[in-house]
Amino acid sequence: MSDASRPIDPPRDVVRDVVARAIAEDLGPLGDITAALVAEDVRALADVVVRADGVLAGTVCATEVFAQVDPTVDVEWRQHDGAHVAAGAVVGVVAGSFRSVVTSERTALNFLCHLSGVATTTSRFVAAAGERARILDTRKTLPGLRALEKAAVRAGGGANHRASLSDMVLVKDNHLVGSSIASAVARAHELWPGRTVEIECDRPEQVIEAIDAGADIVMLDNMAPDEAAKCAAIARDSGRSHLLLEVSGGITLETVGAYADAGIDLISTSAITQSAPALDIALDMRVR
Amino acid sequence: MSDASRPIDPPRDVVRDVVARAIAEDLGPLGDITAALVAEDVRALADVVVRADGVLAGTVCATEVFAQVDPTVDVEWRQHDGAHVAAGAVVGVVAGSFRSVVTSERTALNFLCHLSGVATTTSRFVAAAGERARILDTRKTLPGLRALEKAAVRAGGGANHRASLSDMVLVKDNHLVGSSIASAVARAHELWPGRTVEIECDRPEQVIEAIDAGADIVMLDNMAPDEAAKCAAIARDSGRSHLLLEVSGGITLETVGAYADAGIDLISTSAITQSAPALDIALDMRVR
Amino acid sequence: MSDASRPIDPPRDVVRDVVARAIAEDLGPLGDITAALVAEDVRALADVVVRADGVLAGTVCATEVFAQVDPTVDVEWRQHDGAHVAAGAVVGVVAGSFRSVVTSERTALNFLCHLSGVATTTSRFVAAAGERARILDTRKTLPGLRALEKAAVRAGGGANHRASLSDMVLVKDNHLVGSSIASAVARAHELWPGRTVEIECDRPEQVIEAIDAGADIVMLDNMAPDEAAKCAAIARDSGRSHLLLEVSGGITLETVGAYADAGIDLISTSAITQSAPALDIALDMRVR
Amino acid sequence: MSDASRPIDPPRDVVRDVVARAIAEDLGPLGDITAALVAEDVRALADVVVRADGVLAGTVCATEVFAQVDPTVDVEWRQHDGAHVAAGAVVGVVAGSFRSVVTSERTALNFLCHLSGVATTTSRFVAAAGERARILDTRKTLPGLRALEKAAVRAGGGANHRASLSDMVLVKDNHLVGSSIASAVARAHELWPGRTVEIECDRPEQVIEAIDAGADIVMLDNMAPDEAAKCAAIARDSGRSHLLLEVSGGITLETVGAYADAGIDLISTSAITQSAPALDIALDMRVR
Amino acid sequence: MSDASRPIDPPRDVVRDVVARAIAEDLGPLGDITAALVAEDVRALADVVVRADGVLAGTVCATEVFAQVDPTVDVEWRQHDGAHVAAGAVVGVVAGSFRSVVTSERTALNFLCHLSGVATTTSRFVAAAGERARILDTRKTLPGLRALEKAAVRAGGGANHRASLSDMVLVKDNHLVGSSIASAVARAHELWPGRTVEIECDRPEQVIEAIDAGADIVMLDNMAPDEAAKCAAIARDSGRSHLLLEVSGGITLETVGAYADAGIDLISTSAITQSAPALDIALDMRVR
Amino acid sequence: MSDASRPIDPPRDVVRDVVARAIAEDLGPLGDITAALVAEDVRALADVVVRADGVLAGTVCATEVFAQVDPTVDVEWRQHDGAHVAAGAVVGVVAGSFRSVVTSERTALNFLCHLSGVATTTSRFVAAAGERARILDTRKTLPGLRALEKAAVRAGGGANHRASLSDMVLVKDNHLVGSSIASAVARAHELWPGRTVEIECDRPEQVIEAIDAGADIVMLDNMAPDEAAKCAAIARDSGRSHLLLEVSGGITLETVGAYADAGIDLISTSAITQSAPALDIALDMRVR
Repeated sequence: MSDASRPIDPPRDVVRDVVARAIAEDLGPLGDITAALVAEDVRALADVVVRADGVLAGTVCATEVFAQVDPTVDVEWRQHDGAHVAAGAVVGVVAGSFRSVVTSERTALNFLCHLSGVATTTSRFVAAAGERARILDTRKTLPGLRALEKAAVRAGGGANHRASLSDMVLVKDNHLVGSSIASAVARAHELWPGRTVEIECDRPEQVIEAIDAGADIVMLDNMAPDEAAKCAAIARDSGRSHLLLEVSGGITLETVGAYADAGIDLISTSAITQSAPALDIALDMRVR
Repeated sequence: MSDASRPIDPPRDVVRDVVARAIAEDLGPLGDITAALVAEDVRALADVVVRADGVLAGTVCATEVFAQVDPTVDVEWRQHDGAHVAAGAVVGVVAGSFRSVVTSERTALNFLCHLSGVATTTSRFVAAAGERARILDTRKTLPGLRALEKAAVRAGGGANHRASLSDMVLVKDNHLVGSSIASAVARAHELWPGRTVEIECDRPEQVIEAIDAGADIVMLDNMAPDEAAKCAAIARDSGRSHLLLEVSGGITLETVGAYADAGIDLISTSAITQSAPALDIALDMRVR
Repeated sequence: MSDASRPIDPPRDVVRDVVARAIAEDLGPLGDITAALVAEDVRALADVVVRADGVLAGTVCATEVFAQVDPTVDVEWRQHDGAHVAAGAVVGVVAGSFRSVVTSERTALNFLCHLSGVATTTSRFVAAAGERARILDTRKTLPGLRALEKAAVRAGGGANHRASLSDMVLVKDNHLVGSSIASAVARAHELWPGRTVEIECDRPEQVIEAIDAGADIVMLDNMAPDEAAKCAAIARDSGRSHLLLEVSGGITLETVGAYADAGIDLISTSAITQSAPALDIALDMRVR
Repeated sequence: MSDASRPIDPPRDVVRDVVARAIAEDLGPLGDITAALVAEDVRALADVVVRADGVLAGTVCATEVFAQVDPTVDVEWRQHDGAHVAAGAVVGVVAGSFRSVVTSERTALNFLCHLSGVATTTSRFVAAAGERARILDTRKTLPGLRALEKAAVRAGGGANHRASLSDMVLVKDNHLVGSSIASAVARAHELWPGRTVEIECDRPEQVIEAIDAGADIVMLDNMAPDEAAKCAAIARDSGRSHLLLEVSGGITLETVGAYADAGIDLISTSAITQSAPALDIALDMRVR
Repeated sequence: MSDASRPIDPPRDVVRDVVARAIAEDLGPLGDITAALVAEDVRALADVVVRADGVLAGTVCATEVFAQVDPTVDVEWRQHDGAHVAAGAVVGVVAGSFRSVVTSERTALNFLCHLSGVATTTSRFVAAAGERARILDTRKTLPGLRALEKAAVRAGGGANHRASLSDMVLVKDNHLVGSSIASAVARAHELWPGRTVEIECDRPEQVIEAIDAGADIVMLDNMAPDEAAKCAAIARDSGRSHLLLEVSGGITLETVGAYADAGIDLISTSAITQSAPALDIALDMRVR
Repeated sequence: MSDASRPIDPPRDVVRDVVARAIAEDLGPLGDITAALVAEDVRALADVVVRADGVLAGTVCATEVFAQVDPTVDVEWRQHDGAHVAAGAVVGVVAGSFRSVVTSERTALNFLCHLSGVATTTSRFVAAAGERARILDTRKTLPGLRALEKAAVRAGGGANHRASLSDMVLVKDNHLVGSSIASAVARAHELWPGRTVEIECDRPEQVIEAIDAGADIVMLDNMAPDEAAKCAAIARDSGRSHLLLEVSGGITLETVGAYADAGIDLISTSAITQSAPALDIALDMRVR
């Protein structure tokens, strides 16, 4: 088992499906009616240029776009997902029929810009958290793009929380009406043995309850860094091995370091998916 | 024909398909394994609360999420797409099986938060442009969500540029190698009679050329407001009726007013779709 | 920009999907149970023969059928979409496994025969209209085949009207109840800036109204050629540049020339799509 | 078992899928941008009027179109599939939101016009054949529409030949290279016991061979009526019970009667599917 | 026509679709998160080993699984569908990226194990029936897998009964309320000329009725072998050529021979599809 | 949180999709050509009867089949998924159009028979294991049916192991080449923080290694009950809380009790999914 440094790509079947829908969406029933003005035999050679500092993601999607529009278009990447790139960097080169390249351009870039935006924002949170805590995504993702955004989070150095409601048990306040944390965890272990059980807590007493009940992860909901630190101390004092502490809710680039300092293991935020601004990436035609 | 003030919803079939995929993505193969901890007969009543000032969009998607997860869940909207809402406003109420409501919650909110984010950002550009110019979207949208984002732009008071490459002819610099603007417009009229023809121009001489060639829209690419104003004067002086002037490229909330002042008709920006931060909207359980 | 003489193919993704459904439809759950009688290693070499004069269309679909059924089947076209071919002409050659060729045969021919039928009928209207007017299709197409039929119309020398309801604004009589042409055009410009606006007119006064309102295309509905000529004169006298005049409704091969003579720009007819008889094309096995 | 006079509808799942694709194709990403000009609360009441004599088909498809676009639109049919209707007849009434009705109109009519065209052409062949022979369709159908066209053939009084290659064994000339009719039939019985086996024959000797081999149906390929009559005599003389004789190839409304007179059981023709002209059916708005 | 000994594969399009869904089901949104622990450049070479005596089936599905997960994985089969293999036999070899091979492993094996289980159980019934009668499947198949299971039945030496309700007419007791066998057969011939008509019979008198009515197949429902033998005698005495006798209901490996001895042509059983235990097949990693 | 005794249903969207495909598969292009012999207005009332002792599962699928074929068919269940039912029990009643009921019958029963077979086999393992250990499924499921089979396992009293490769980390022998258990667990924690990590062990030393490394579940691969008991003692002695011990491989109804006695927490077996024989369930027409 080597030290694989490249982040794990999204599943190929998901890429295939999402790209197919994106192409259908952009081509429409007639195809690229402007490209049709250009003669069929004109060739294009284009650089994929990043126009702002960031982290690259989405290259498998972009490759798939060109391949589905025209299998004869050649795409070569100089940088891979997860690479930190500077404004002006040429991260890839595309060569092929002019019509095919310009027809694919926007769809390929839409994947690259959004997913690199996710990776870039993630990497900023990761840098702010340092080595002490991991940055996690949430289920607050854009409809239809979750698997791709989760891969982009990995490209940015973050890790993935639940990918779906099937993944693990995450008991929030609402799930507890008429029940205790202890009985909820017991029921979770009974229904879904072996699955991770996480308990959302609002205050220290609940943290103790959750640890005692055997939760695998304790999520501190919307706590300030100092409150979180107190809970972290409680967790340490409990002596429970393999317990993870997570904070979630309202975390910003400014506050993320304080949470990491507080001894939290996992910091989850929707800012890296549903509010990540696009990274500006473009196709520059070099010669024809 | 009355003065229909509500924006036009996205096509029902698109909503149905995108929602179905989003639900499949979030439920996974087992469904909501946490909701399963709660007894089947528990009921939920929840408010849809906007937590920040903004413009609402995506209500038809949210309604469809609940309906597909459980047709017996009842959703009522107090505000409709396009409504300007203040932080704290209850825009809708959801009632039904607790399991169904919490299972649907995240997917419904993912639509609402993203699309209301698009509408909100759009409305800010619209406010900055005033009555003088229209704010338009672009094809820089998130893969698979274009039709929904374009509806959200309308909800925010903006209008739609091309929805796909089939819609209109938009000749950019790259399309002109070995050809003149005049011959490109002529070829467009020949191939696609009746379709709108837009020409992207970098400098005033090209604007003249485009107008003379019979372009319907002249797009000023990455021009400063004062350059744009010069081109607007050229357009006015040409005497061509039904000609529209568009600016695109690097426009911000700060500069959009200057372009509107410059006499531009249409201002298009990707900031309102691919970089719009989510509007914070949540489900607050009232009683059970 | 060269003088590209080949018509624009339908989008590849549409071809892929429609062909996949057509194959599923024809193969059924067991596949070709008759081909199964023939030994697996028998080879086929077959000519694609046109049995009546006409215009070829649908070759990309036919190629895709063979490729999806068996990627090792080799298809070579001697003629391309848009070619005028005489009865008896061999337009392509297919070589490969006998089983694969006969299994694909009918589905491939169903595309070729129907789409060449559309192209052929279109080319007859085009010939009758001469250089003076363009022949356009309509939205009266066969469900699921629109993009392919529109490509076949282009192959026959015609051009495409709206591909969908999203494309342009076309105000008919029914849309005007309680409204004037002027207010409808104004509303269209407000809702959909930059989109082509077409107004259907029954009589000369409406034509004047539509031109004054700023319509881009005036459609004369079910008018006789002489009435159409009067409206054409009105349009010319208006001095409006870039205005197009279209006739639609009950146009036949016999009357199309008269409309072209009347100074009409665009002649649209459903006869070229939903009532075009198939062109007889067959596969002739040469050797095995 | 009563004498069910209504033809059998196409399977509901096929109708649902084909209609969903047709709607997506016609609405596009923005929906009906012209209907958007009309206020949301305007109501429509429209007659479905047949403008030429013919046989109605496709009503379940039309109903499904309206239901998928807007479940609140009400559709009532005065005539059902298979009804012979005269020009001017009102065969159904549609009531509901004006926007929904006009948005659905073209797609609903595209189904009705094409399928009624198929039913009408079929009924003409049926009338010409009289009681003596049945009119059958073929696999020469329009891609994606086979199940619907086969239902329309039944509505027109015809019957269905193979719906797919999985249905029955139909041995043509090409399948026989290196084999005899007898061995082909034997192999078919071995591979697919219980399936109908049909043999295509070019000359009388083959007919004898096919009957002796135990074929269930003998297809006379491209034979003139008098040749067909000779083969019919051979078949009668053979004394084989439950043997059916079919003719196929180049049959027209003019010649179909002669084949029926010749003692043929089944007459199959592609003219009723892939070359059937649309029946003119329209929606007439009555009041609003 | 050679003596093709290999069974007919399922249609390629069905294989493609079912495999795509199976992969999506097994990979989930993140892909193989365990394979991700292994470095990207590790290679695998693995034997496909059968761990129990049986008949192989499903190789085209397994090949397709590897191809869809990673087109660079190489799969070679030493045995083909229909081969009788002994425990321990290496039937194929897989080589490629370690990650891709282990990611594909379970899905590929799920097809192989189930379909080989179907083929193996079929082959046992076939052996027990001997040369005298054919073993047929039924429509009692696992949802979504029918075409594949029917191919596996063929691989096991069995043959296929109806693949769908569209295939042939099979009149059961329930269909006869208010009707006679004779009128049901007559109606079937009228509605569906040329289609096989089968009549389910509970007692000898019905067999006579069915033969007289012209049924192509008589199915003896839940009859003991001696009763079936009486019906077979009736059928022989009728002198009807091309009549097939089928038994169905409660047939086991123990009783199947007695039915074959009774002179029955076709023996159908659901035991070979919906209750066939999986054949144990595994992937053994040889070297890396 | 009440003591919800009903097992959790599979996700509604999965049911919808799998049922739609199953219906398409069984109806074919023409629909039920035998039901067409019966008059349209005949009604059916039918009991769903279980013909052998077992556990019911799949009722939501059966309900969905009838609803998709004909929404007017009424289905009422007297027993729900998870109910232990005796041979002869009427578990539900179906009422509606005769044609619709017989057309839906086989597809509805195929779901019921297979899924009840899975639940029944599971319940036998559960009974044999007693209260001491949980019975778990595996990923050895039938392609396309996993979510439904996992729900049926729950109905039978079992629990679910991984639903997909995305769910948890399960390190097998093959994943460890060139790596240690400790480094694999560390890497898993790094890549997928919070996810369950399971280690497959062949011998006691590995069990110690896995526990020390912090594995959440230790899987004993193909161990005899006495070996498993030794490992269980090791685990107890380790003092690790929240550690689960699983056995897998070659477990039968005869041996399952011995494993439970050995102090194992989880017993997983593919016998309950891919080799579960169908439970015999039928539709008995009561009156018409």
